[in-house]
Amino acid sequence: RGGNKIEGADECIRHLEESGKRVFYLTNNSAKSRQGCADKLASLVGVAASTDQIIASSSSAAAYLGDKGFDKQSKVLVIGQEGIHAELREAGFQSLRCEDLVEETSPQCSIAEFEGIPVDETVRAVVAGVDDAFSYRKLCLASLYLRSDPTRLFVATNRDVGDRVGTDGRLIPGAGPVVAALESAAGRCAVNV
Amino acid sequence: RGGNKIEGADECIRHLEESGKRVFYLTNNSAKSRQGCADKLASLVGVAASTDQIIASSSSAAAYLGDKGFDKQSKVLVIGQEGIHAELREAGFQSLRCEDLVEETSPQCSIAEFEGIPVDETVRAVVAGVDDAFSYRKLCLASLYLRSDPTRLFVATNRDVGDRVGTDGRLIPGAGPVVAALESAAGRCAVNV
Repeated sequence: RGGNKIEGADECIRHLEESGKRVFYLTNNSAKSRQGCADKLASLVGVAASTDQIIASSSSAAAYLGDKGFDKQSKVLVIGQEGIHAELREAGFQSLRCEDLVEETSPQCSIAEFEGIPVDETVRAVVAGVDDAFSYRKLCLASLYLRSDPTRLFVATNRDVGDRVGTDGRLIPGAGPVVAALESAAGRCAVNV
Repeated sequence: RGGNKIEGADECIRHLEESGKRVFYLTNNSAKSRQGCADKLASLVGVAASTDQIIASSSSAAAYLGDKGFDKQSKVLVIGQEGIHAELREAGFQSLRCEDLVEETSPQCSIAEFEGIPVDETVRAVVAGVDDAFSYRKLCLASLYLRSDPTRLFVATNRDVGDRVGTDGRLIPGAGPVVAALESAAGRCAVNV
């Protein structure tokens, strides 16, 4: 749970494997790739898992684009963290950060600047997940792409409100609030994979 | 409309005033104070208006806190722009920016940092409007305050999706997407003034 191992998890998993069961790991985490999840399983729980045994919401987003026959010559704008980029690239898709489309990286975006942002027509999808550096600039850019062509795909890795962290179990915002902001700005709903 | 004068607006307003009508100006703009709106009316339309003739959503938020008998010794966390701060201060309230509560100003907020953010119990309200420098850090902080005490007031200046700008009439995100993110993260609805 978070950065803490659930007591007995490793014995339980080993018991299942020794009795001939196939073990899979499912997570709505979009910040990590399947490899990132495997690394965490190894270091935190002491369990060896291959990426084939793992399904994360980051890899689900890539699988969804694959299922839709998304063109590998087209580009994907990602509002999210490294896991989504890693999974999209591994699946052969071209994932872009906002800074690949506009040079300026400050969270702020003025009306004057927004008016002048060109739209790259080769961007054919926006994929959103939790983004611990989410900003008004990212909101502006994603909204611009989603509104300027309603046929652009809009994919959400998940809608989790957040994760409980710290000694008081406070909730750190997850993909849900990011997706909610984007849906409000874009005037349409994301496909939640 | 935006930065453009509607043709004949000044003649129309002058005609109304000369015929003895009292003219009021209503705007859901939260980025500007009433004085800021008066300045814009003067420079853009060429009309002299006093702040008494103007109701903006920034001043509505301050009026709402006044109506609720909000304690002037308490503090208000503002996710928004200068207009809200100016109106809250003019009404005698103590408005805070996120950087008044946490020193770091980068849009990014890690789990480790979030876990250690102290809550100032004298902050008794969160007021949200359009914020052209909105960030994950602000989302984290507002959510922390709204979740850690359900009696803290949660006020939205408005829920406008955005404004049409530029030659192609593209929509720049407004208060709506910011409020949507905060409501999703906080797990409760804002009072829309």
